[in-house]
Amino acid sequence: MNDTLAGTSLDQETRLHEDDHHSIKLWLRLLTCSSLVESRLRAALREEFDTTLPRFDFMAQLERAPEGLTMGELSQRMMVSGGNVSGIAAQLVKEGLVDRRPVPSNRRTFMVKLTPKGRKMFVAMAERHEQWVIALLGHLQAEDVDQLMELLKRVKAGL
Amino acid sequence: MNDTLAGTSLDQETRLHEDDHHSIKLWLRLLTCSSLVESRLRAALREEFDTTLPRFDFMAQLERAPEGLTMGELSQRMMVSGGNVSGIAAQLVKEGLVDRRPVPSNRRTFMVKLTPKGRKMFVAMAERHEQWVIALLGHLQAEDVDQLMELLKRVKAGL
Repeated sequence: MNDTLAGTSLDQETRLHEDDHHSIKLWLRLLTCSSLVESRLRAALREEFDTTLPRFDFMAQLERAPEGLTMGELSQRMMVSGGNVSGIAAQLVKEGLVDRRPVPSNRRTFMVKLTPKGRKMFVAMAERHEQWVIALLGHLQAEDVDQLMELLKRVKAGL
Repeated sequence: MNDTLAGTSLDQETRLHEDDHHSIKLWLRLLTCSSLVESRLRAALREEFDTTLPRFDFMAQLERAPEGLTMGELSQRMMVSGGNVSGIAAQLVKEGLVDRRPVPSNRRTFMVKLTPKGRKMFVAMAERHEQWVIALLGHLQAEDVDQLMELLKRVKAGL
């Protein structure tokens, strides 16, 4: 694969061998792109809002579910383990950003929801988050974005 | 953007709004794809080799640098903080998989290298890792892979 970019920077792709399978090359490029975006967002969230990416993701999922989510649903949507989600929930409850209460039908299941304060804070963060993502990816042509969306849909469908 | 896949599964994309900017949609799809692959690889490494992805990444970078790498170089290539890298190094040294010694010209800088035992173990893991990645991404047509490589190169170049 003719690729002049590989080797110009030190990142996950640095570990590639010339003769690695194209699936490996694709995976390491995908990983590098997502790690780079993620680390910029992580730094910006810390700097501007003194918060972390998992906390932001947690609140983002809740903002899409005004009726609340169980801890299991959150864990699945955030694609992280239940333990991590519980830790974040406890912290956000303590700060008054999230409300957590047992589900009436099953008292061992907890439902979490943004509080009005949490929602207000999330809206402010989401606005900045969108600006950051546009600053990071907005250089792409509209047709490149469409193609990428389609190709990544195929990646996702095969997983 | 006409997209029948969104909404069929619960993942990072679940938090999207209809009217989110296309950069946000692209970012969440990229993140979902890379998180899905990552979590499969993580599970397989744990199950077959009782090891973690950061340990594997650490050894993968060293395998590409037979002369060894400083801790700073490793940290940059792995795209993680120095603290994480030191912890992994200490563990691998303890298990005899990695050799760590001060650089003669600067005794505060440490150089790490795979031991023969570490190299042998890495080769076995890398072989399986390649098979897993092919199983996860090998369903893509060759032209889709080429297009994705090119488009992700543009993503990376703008970051």
